[in-house]
Formats: sequence, structure tokens, C-alpha cells
Amino acid sequence: MKAVRIHEYNKPFSIDEVEYPKITGPYDIIVKIKGAGVCRTDLHIQEGIWKDVLNPKLPFTIGHENVGIIEEVGSAVTWLSKGDPVILHPYISCRYCRACRAGNDMHCPNGKFPGLDGTDGGYAEHLKTSAFSAIKLPKNVDPVPMAPLADAGVTAYHAVKKISPYLYPGSVVVVIGVGGLGHIGIQALKAITPAKVIAVDISEDRIKFAREIGADDGIIAGEDGGVKEVLRLTDNLGADVVIDFVGEHSTPLNAIRMIKKGGIYSIVGYGGEFRNTTIDFINREIMVVGNLVGTYNELAELVTLYSSGKVKLQTQIFPLDKANEVLEMLKSGKIIGRAILTP
Amino acid sequence: MKAVRIHEYNKPFSIDEVEYPKITGPYDIIVKIKGAGVCRTDLHIQEGIWKDVLNPKLPFTIGHENVGIIEEVGSAVTWLSKGDPVILHPYISCRYCRACRAGNDMHCPNGKFPGLDGTDGGYAEHLKTSAFSAIKLPKNVDPVPMAPLADAGVTAYHAVKKISPYLYPGSVVVVIGVGGLGHIGIQALKAITPAKVIAVDISEDRIKFAREIGADDGIIAGEDGGVKEVLRLTDNLGADVVIDFVGEHSTPLNAIRMIKKGGIYSIVGYGGEFRNTTIDFINREIMVVGNLVGTYNELAELVTLYSSGKVKLQTQIFPLDKANEVLEMLKSGKIIGRAILTP
Amino acid sequence: MKAVRIHEYNKPFSIDEVEYPKITGPYDIIVKIKGAGVCRTDLHIQEGIWKDVLNPKLPFTIGHENVGIIEEVGSAVTWLSKGDPVILHPYISCRYCRACRAGNDMHCPNGKFPGLDGTDGGYAEHLKTSAFSAIKLPKNVDPVPMAPLADAGVTAYHAVKKISPYLYPGSVVVVIGVGGLGHIGIQALKAITPAKVIAVDISEDRIKFAREIGADDGIIAGEDGGVKEVLRLTDNLGADVVIDFVGEHSTPLNAIRMIKKGGIYSIVGYGGEFRNTTIDFINREIMVVGNLVGTYNELAELVTLYSSGKVKLQTQIFPLDKANEVLEMLKSGKIIGRAILTP
Amino acid sequence: MKAVRIHEYNKPFSIDEVEYPKITGPYDIIVKIKGAGVCRTDLHIQEGIWKDVLNPKLPFTIGHENVGIIEEVGSAVTWLSKGDPVILHPYISCRYCRACRAGNDMHCPNGKFPGLDGTDGGYAEHLKTSAFSAIKLPKNVDPVPMAPLADAGVTAYHAVKKISPYLYPGSVVVVIGVGGLGHIGIQALKAITPAKVIAVDISEDRIKFAREIGADDGIIAGEDGGVKEVLRLTDNLGADVVIDFVGEHSTPLNAIRMIKKGGIYSIVGYGGEFRNTTIDFINREIMVVGNLVGTYNELAELVTLYSSGKVKLQTQIFPLDKANEVLEMLKSGKIIGRAILTP
Repeated sequence: MKAVRIHEYNKPFSIDEVEYPKITGPYDIIVKIKGAGVCRTDLHIQEGIWKDVLNPKLPFTIGHENVGIIEEVGSAVTWLSKGDPVILHPYISCRYCRACRAGNDMHCPNGKFPGLDGTDGGYAEHLKTSAFSAIKLPKNVDPVPMAPLADAGVTAYHAVKKISPYLYPGSVVVVIGVGGLGHIGIQALKAITPAKVIAVDISEDRIKFAREIGADDGIIAGEDGGVKEVLRLTDNLGADVVIDFVGEHSTPLNAIRMIKKGGIYSIVGYGGEFRNTTIDFINREIMVVGNLVGTYNELAELVTLYSSGKVKLQTQIFPLDKANEVLEMLKSGKIIGRAILTP
Repeated sequence: MKAVRIHEYNKPFSIDEVEYPKITGPYDIIVKIKGAGVCRTDLHIQEGIWKDVLNPKLPFTIGHENVGIIEEVGSAVTWLSKGDPVILHPYISCRYCRACRAGNDMHCPNGKFPGLDGTDGGYAEHLKTSAFSAIKLPKNVDPVPMAPLADAGVTAYHAVKKISPYLYPGSVVVVIGVGGLGHIGIQALKAITPAKVIAVDISEDRIKFAREIGADDGIIAGEDGGVKEVLRLTDNLGADVVIDFVGEHSTPLNAIRMIKKGGIYSIVGYGGEFRNTTIDFINREIMVVGNLVGTYNELAELVTLYSSGKVKLQTQIFPLDKANEVLEMLKSGKIIGRAILTP
Repeated sequence: MKAVRIHEYNKPFSIDEVEYPKITGPYDIIVKIKGAGVCRTDLHIQEGIWKDVLNPKLPFTIGHENVGIIEEVGSAVTWLSKGDPVILHPYISCRYCRACRAGNDMHCPNGKFPGLDGTDGGYAEHLKTSAFSAIKLPKNVDPVPMAPLADAGVTAYHAVKKISPYLYPGSVVVVIGVGGLGHIGIQALKAITPAKVIAVDISEDRIKFAREIGADDGIIAGEDGGVKEVLRLTDNLGADVVIDFVGEHSTPLNAIRMIKKGGIYSIVGYGGEFRNTTIDFINREIMVVGNLVGTYNELAELVTLYSSGKVKLQTQIFPLDKANEVLEMLKSGKIIGRAILTP
Repeated sequence: MKAVRIHEYNKPFSIDEVEYPKITGPYDIIVKIKGAGVCRTDLHIQEGIWKDVLNPKLPFTIGHENVGIIEEVGSAVTWLSKGDPVILHPYISCRYCRACRAGNDMHCPNGKFPGLDGTDGGYAEHLKTSAFSAIKLPKNVDPVPMAPLADAGVTAYHAVKKISPYLYPGSVVVVIGVGGLGHIGIQALKAITPAKVIAVDISEDRIKFAREIGADDGIIAGEDGGVKEVLRLTDNLGADVVIDFVGEHSTPLNAIRMIKKGGIYSIVGYGGEFRNTTIDFINREIMVVGNLVGTYNELAELVTLYSSGKVKLQTQIFPLDKANEVLEMLKSGKIIGRAILTP
């Protein structure tokens, strides 16, 4: 079968002919991939940014945002069967550690991350993963346009859910970056919290789009990244929360200036550095929070929001063998919303 | 009456003769000061570190950690009367803003901070403050040795209480710095959480002291600030929480290396800078939390712990007119525990 | 001035000429009443149901759901002035006890409840209350139609907010009773939670109305109070939460049968009795929660929701001297939504 | 092998010779039983009380509080091996439903309850259960005296943990019933919360014992079940929380009178009925909470408390074939602490 694989850093991915995967464990499943979302993390893998963090063995198939149809199930899988449409949580967790049992799947120390850590991912015709990672969809649902929920979506939703206990009618949340994750984050904020949402982006089109999908206000980031305008809109107090879907260049330093006393700076995007004095941390009693991908239950909740029309996705679909071209488009800002590859 | 006042930055404080304060509002009280704790923040005020943050009008009387006996009460104060021993919450909050009503006294934007923001503090024979700041003590209690609870104590307790929901039997908390705040923090951790506590300090004596007051383990910080030893004691996973009572020099950078996936770095001490990559924030999904002083209710809870013997204080008592000498001793590390001035 | 007062239980209220109130404390305010909501509790006062609980001294002016314009303020009130339109939290809390400081205004043991506990309420031309109870509205807002927020609204909102941490996309909440409180509860649920809402009422018109204001489903309660239909709509699992705005007759017994394992039965309406076996409490691990009126902050949040159009009120306005007639209408089910008296 | 089985309700259990269990699923384990705790629920099974709730198929082996040594593991079990001492969580949960993934193992709708629902339990020489239910103990630990943690302990701990967020220094918790569960509950309260604990029991000896293991106060329940004395000890305010390990006869009605405004009545014991007016629920804004057994993570936390000496158990050990005699002793109040059967 066809698979898009990384053989070497800083080189285009290779489109290889590889063997169809084999069920080896009782809870394995094989999924016929119908859609695989294209993520900035795939570019970061190519650039070798994750090399030091995870040190994956090359080559492997990338793709960690997958939907498809169950093709085979292991001997102990009773709740899924061939033909079921599924959306796949990106992580394979062990189910027996404290983190798994507490609902923090992503902190499981025994897990695997297909498409990221050297385990074969979903830029392929078939993917082997765990039955515990699959969310069964209704038979009549086309899973393809839902692919971006599996990673971009559940990450944005996780960040929103984590800060939701702090929000009440009158709270203000700033969303920096209205891209693949940000546009889901805005909708999730409006769906599950009563907060007022201010979108910040460098693109006028994206700000317009942000308003269409529910942002109450929008700021085109100028030289100060929107700081002055956020302060103006919040009576110089600052926002309760800033969720930063960019996380590089000047956004961490600007974001921290946008939050109020007792406020929260929530980081989703990455690539840059954050710094602050300890006196500011204590004097304003602020909090900085990192976000990895969300949990299986959070993905299920997001699928519910999507199914009820409260979260909509902007997607573009391309054939799998155009993977390298699509990643180039993403790099040069030519993808609107989220790209999906279909084998 | 006598009062220790700042007239100029980077000069010794002046011991002035000033007028006895006057009740002007219905909820004012005048307290005959019996003890005023000596805090590193008093040194920081002298050094002008708070000048940019609060810009107080000079001169004013310093001292923000006070106990005493009620001398006079305003017309509307029904629950306190002359002769009541009291411990004073350091902040005067407005009681009508959202923060006051939500229990976050310290985020009240309409408050005053005697001894810090230009309002006269407690290094004096008498102090005017708000009846809402006073916690009434039993008649037979000597308030003097309790002075350090009023600021050092409630700050350490606040930091502990904020992270307590994350702790369970098996959790590990590292306390960096076993000084005036740290020694209260360790005892508060043991009193209200089931966590294992590891104390880190540069002084062997202080580590010995930490064990005596309840720390389960102690590390004398060497070149790496104790990072390796913390990792060794936690199976290379890191601690659930690090509470940093130093907050300067290399501690912020070391602290972040001591915490595990999903862990929390809690900042109490200040003076230095914190920095980290955004990829580390998201990959380990960590949290950094600032702490200002605690709430009135938290001070009352701490008084309860102290009264039941679960939190003990190490104090040294000096006469008020030795204020400058005592601050010199604090600066040169000669104060053991917390110094208290008595008029 | 005119005031509607209770002199004797089980008699119509008397419309008396009484003296204009006097400012006596520094935080007193006098409010020119523009609207006073008519509440089933006023009927319960008349019937003597509250006699055993609060034992108020008769006569006194009833009315605990008030809006108006500030007429006079006490000497220490700096944040309100004559001419300000205000909505009044029904309770006068002390501001210095632990409950007040923790945000639980209603559990303040030192408070007064105008219109309920013998303190004169708002069925009058003027009302004396505390400045701490007033929420200032924008100058251009007509406060009259907002009156029901002050008690019915904040009670319904409080009940919704209390259970909101348990709700996620996919959760189901049943609302029993679509009257003065219930219709606000439904809207609050849709505004601040992602839950699916099922309304239950005996009236077809009210179910129709419930759907118009946001209920996802509606059940006309038959003999079993809607139990079977709730189970049918939830795959026989039951609802996550039932909020009962009736609280008498068979609703407590039916409600408990509607909730699922781990579910919550939340009581707002009163008059009846609840009973259950302890084995059912433990086997299904269920929770039963009472709700008093909400906090000042919650009322402010609700005003924000109302101002942004997320909560709308159905009201009918009558002159103050028709108080007895309006209460008769309420008793016989002839009030649609909430009645407001205006002097 | 030998097994104690129920063939008929209201008859003594039969000691049968049954077949050694067979591994059938990849995550099955077979445990050589070293200790099986004797629980009042075993009596309730005999009496047929659980018949209507679970309707188990007879005969089956009882015993749901088990410790032992791993004898065999299924093909997919990588983290346990023959010879490991283990304590067993009583419930076999599916690991894939929302409840399992959220940490609420006991609300898993797909699980099995050995010794209770018709699945063979641990009053036997060997027990088949799930690898996901086993907590591995250090090699050198004798698991036998820990058996009561597996059900009595984790249930008491769960009840304590659930109310712990409501407790602070100064809070008061009443524990009704100092038996097998209650004596663990008292120690758990002292280990993980700062609350003052008042024990209530009908036996003077048990009250003495309660004080020895940490209760701050004790009340011998007279005619009013201790209500007056609890009120006296709490300035007539009542306790913050009452945990009821009896749950029958007059305790539910007494317990509700012991709690203060905003208080919680937590039910663990069962057999009786609870009733209250809805006006009391709303006027005092109280909460009633049921408790089933705790989660796997909670059992692991409790094992940690036990290992560090913070929770001690009072046990009596008997041979397995004395099961009927021991149950008779339990019924007639002759067991002190918790009885354990060993094959």
C-alpha cells in the first residue's frame, strides 16, 4: 500500500510502497484511511524540531489526524467491527497507568504516537492503531471532513475546556491566531463558555472570518501585536485569558501584556520562547498554562459539538500523493482552514 | 508617636515622631501595634524595587505584617471593640467589587496596602486600618509571636492551598528555600495535603530544620540547584509541584527542570526572571503559577492551624527602634526564622 | 408613602400609608422603587409557610425582587449616587463573615432579608437597603422589566451555575416547570453550558414556549410526570441532571427516577417532601442538591446575559395597588411569565 | 479447588469443590487468594437484598475484597507476572467507556463485579479477574492484612476524598459508625484533610478506639443519635459534613439535623430510608451525596497511605472454611475491625 514517509530531515517526504499492517495485539485495529489532516507539526517533523524531544527512528509514515473505516479488529475488540466509520484519537495510551485512569490519556508514559514518534501514522492507505483510540461514528456519517477534529480540533478544544472553569458572563478571552486550530478554538469558546471572544490575527481576511464564526470582536495585529487594542477594549484591565495559537516570534511577550490581574496565558502554538520577571508573576498573580492534545473524552465531546453544528470546519481536500505539495502550500500560507489528504 | 518611615530610597529608614492617626471612616479601626514582622519586601522597598510598580508617595511608615490590640473603632464597627487582640490582613479591600465578593481580596482594584503603597504601615506605635482587615483573637492569646502569619504566613499558605487540589497520597512537592516563608509552607503542606515534601536549600542547617518541621526529605542545593537529586528521588519523573520561595538567580530555571509532565511551578519569591520554550510548555503540558498574598479567609485558616499547633513559627523579637539594624541582619542572613519588632 | 404590608397570616395584604425610610447606617441607601417582582414566595408568606422558619415580626412590607433609582446614599457610599438605576440583590449581607468573604452571600448568618424576615421590602414607593446589595446599571437602561432577575432570575441562574461543572457536550439536563424561574433556567443552561435541555411541564403552551426559548426537547408531564419519556430520550440511562422548579407533589419522587448513575437532582421549588432509600443513593451514587438564591456576583453575571440578549424575560406589569389582585392571578395560574408591580 | 458459594437465599453458604478457573481473555489474570475480607454486603447478599438490584444467577462464589499472588496472566498482560503480590480493585471495568476514561470506574456500564453480580468472587483458593483491576505491591509486602483496603477501605476513602474539597482548617466532619469502614474513614480524614473529626457510635469502646486512631472528639449516640451533642460542639451551627457509615434506622434523619447551612450529608452505609422536606433543602441549601466504591486510583492512593502508616487496619484472620461462622460473628457484632478469610 501507499504511504508518505520521512527518511531524512529537511528533505521532502517520500511516497513509498509499504506492506499492509498486521494485527499483532488483541486490541489492535486496522483502519482504512479516508482522510488525514495536514498539520504544521508535520512541517516541524520535517524540520527536525521534534528530533531532540522524541528522537524517532527513521523512516516512518507521518500523519496523526486520521479518520477512516474499520477494516480489521483484534481478538478482544468487541465494541467495533469491520465497516464502522471512526475518528481516531492520535495517541495510543496504555489504559492501565494512573494518567489513563484519571482521564489524562496524553500523560500516559507507556503510549505511542503514530505519525510522530516513529510509529507509522495515517498518511497511508491503512493504519494500525489501538481500538481504545477509535470513536465510532454513526454509519451514515462521512468521516472525511471531520479529520481536523482528530488533532487540531481536540487540541483547541482541550485548551478551551481547561480554562472554562475560570470564565463567566462578562469574561473576555483573546484568541491569537485564526488558523486551523484557532478557528476551532473560537467556536468551542462560544459553544461551551459565556465569554466574550476577541480574535487577533495579522490577516484582515482571517479577522473577518473569525467574526463570521462567532468572535465578538477582532483586532488586526499591528506592531504591538494587538496589545493596545485589547487593553482599550477591556477598560485597560486586560483579558481574563489569552489563548495563543501561534506561540512564537513576539506573541508570548505580547500575550502576557494583554492579561489582567489574576489572568491566564494559555499556550497552544509553539516554536518561540516565553519570558517574564518573577515580580510580575507575583504582583499580578498570573498563570501560564501549556496545552498538549486533548483526551479521548474531549474528542468525543467535540464530535458531539460538530454533529450538532456548533463547531464547523473549513477544509480543503487533496489526494494523498500530493502530500509534499500541500505541505509547501501550508508553509507559504496558501491553505485556508485545514487541508485533508485522501488516499 | 514613634514610626519608622522611608523618606528616600537606598537610605536607612528614619525613626520619626508622627501624629497619632485619626478615625475618618465608619469602618476604620486604630490598632495599638504589639508586633510588626520584618520582611524582605521592606528591604525591596528601601531598594526602590517597588517604585515602578506602585510609585508610592514618600515619606510613609513601613510595616505590613502586624498584630496588636484594638484601640478605637469607627461608628459602624459592631463586631470589634477596644481591647480585642487582633491579627491584621495586610490589605485593605473595598468589599464591594467582584474580586472582594469572590473571595479574591488581593485582586480588589480599589484597595490600599499599608506599609507598601504609601499608606502608613505598622512599624509604629499605632496603625489605622480597616475593620474588615482584622481577625479577632481569643482574649487570652498573646498576638506578638503570631505576627509572621499576617504576611509571610498567609502568602505561603495561599501558595500551598492553590496547588492542594492537584495533590494526593503519592504526590511529591519540592519546596525551594526554607526561610521565613518556606518554613511555614512546609508545615502547611503537611497539615492540609497528603503530599511528600522535599526541601531544597543551600544551608545544611536549614535542611536539618526543614526535616524537624515535617519535610520528608531534604537536598542541599549544589551547582545544579538540586535538580539531579530531585529527579533521582522521583524515579526520573520529576515532582508534581515545585514551590519556589526564592524566585531569583538560577532557581526559576532549575525549578522548571524539576517538575514532571503535567507538573506545576509555583512562584512566591521574586527578584529574578523566568524563561522557557513554548515547545516545552506544550510537550510537557506544564503550568507556571504566581502567588500574591492570601485572602482574609486563608489567614483565618492559618490562625486555626497555628492555634492547634500544626504550624509553628520560628521568631526573634527586637525593639521597634532597632528596625534598621534588624533589616541589616536580615540582609546579611543573620535572622533565623522571622524577626518581629515591638514598639 | 404607599406600601403593601402583611398584618396577619391568611389575609389579603394591606395597602398602608407608611413613613419614608431614614438612612441610619453609613452604607444604607434609599431606592425609589420602579419595579417589584411578584413571587410565589409572597403567597407562601401570606400562607404562613415561612413563619416557623424565620418567625418575622408583623406587620412588614413584602417584596424581595426590586429595581429602582438611587434616591439617597449613606455617608460612606462612594460608588453610588442619586439618580443611578439599580437592580437589588435581595439579601443584605454583613460583608465581614467567612461566608460573605467566600462569595456565599446567602449563607451569611448576620444578614437581613427585606420583604421576608420582617425587614420592610420593596412593594412600596421607597426601600431602604444596603449599598452592598445594589448593582449599578447604565444610565440609559430602563430597570423595570429586569425586576424578575433580582430573585427568580438569580435563583435559577445559581442552580444552573452550581451544576455547570458537571456538564459537557452530550450531557442532558431536564428542567421541571417552565414558569417564572424555569424559563430563566432554560435560557441560562443554553447560555453557559453545552448541555441538551429537556423541558417538562403539565401545560402544552409552556412546553411550546420552552422550545421557543431554547429547550431542545419538551415533554408534557402525564401520570408519571414524564419519567418514561425522559428515559426513552436518554437510551434508558436517565438524565445527567434534573432541575426541579416545582419541588412539591410527585415531582421529587419522579425526578429521582429520571437521573442516571452518578446523576444529580437539583431542587429549587419547594413545598413537598423528598424520600429515597439509602441503597439507591449508594448503588447509583446519586446526589441531591438544594438551592437558595444566588450571590451578588451571580446576579451581576445574569444582568450581563440579559443585556447581551442571551436571557429574555416574559413579564406583565401592574400598578402597585393591585398587589392582592395580582397575587390572586398568580395563585390561579393566570400570570404568564413574571408579574411586576410599579408604584 | 475450594470455594464458598451461594446456592440459595437465606441459607448458609456452601463450601464446594469447584474447577480451577481458566484464562479466556488476553487481559485475564488468575490470582492465588491469600486473603478475602468479610463484608456486611456478604450478609446482605445472603439475605437477598441485592437480588432486586442485580439479580445474579446462582450459584456463585462470593467475596469482593481480595488480595493474593499472581498465578497466571493473559497473553496481553505485560505489566504483571507470576509471583507478584497484588491487591484487587473489586470491579472489572471495560476501560473503553466514557466513565472508565474519566476515572469513574464504578460507573462503567459494561463491567463485572466478582462476588456480587453472579461472577465468581474471592472466597476461594483462586480468582479470575482482570489485569486492569490489580495493583502490584512490592515483593516483600505481605498482602493478607491489607485485604480490607480493597473494598471497605476504598469505599471509605472515596467518600472522604469526595468531600475533601469542601474542608479547610476549622471545618468539622462527623463520622457516624466506627466499624470496618468508619475506622478507615476517620484515619483518611485526618490524613488528607485538615478537618476536625467527631466520631459518633453507640459503643463506648468504639468511641475510645476512634480517639486512638485520630478522632478529635467522640459522642456516644443516645436517643437522639448524638444530634444535640454535635450541635453543642459546633456552637449550634452544625457540622460541615456528616459521613454516615450506618445508613439505616434513625441515622439518616439524625444526620440531616447535624449539618449546618450549606452542609453535606454523605451516605455510605445502607439499608434504611432518607427523607426531608424540599423547603429544608432550599432554605439551608444542603446537599446529600451517595457513595459507591472508589476508583482504582483511589485504591492505589489508599495503599500509599497504608504503606506510610497513616492508615492502620484492625483485622482478625480466620480460615476460609469458617466463612459461615465468621459471618454469624459479624451479624452478632462479635467481629472487631474487619475479618479476613485465608484459604
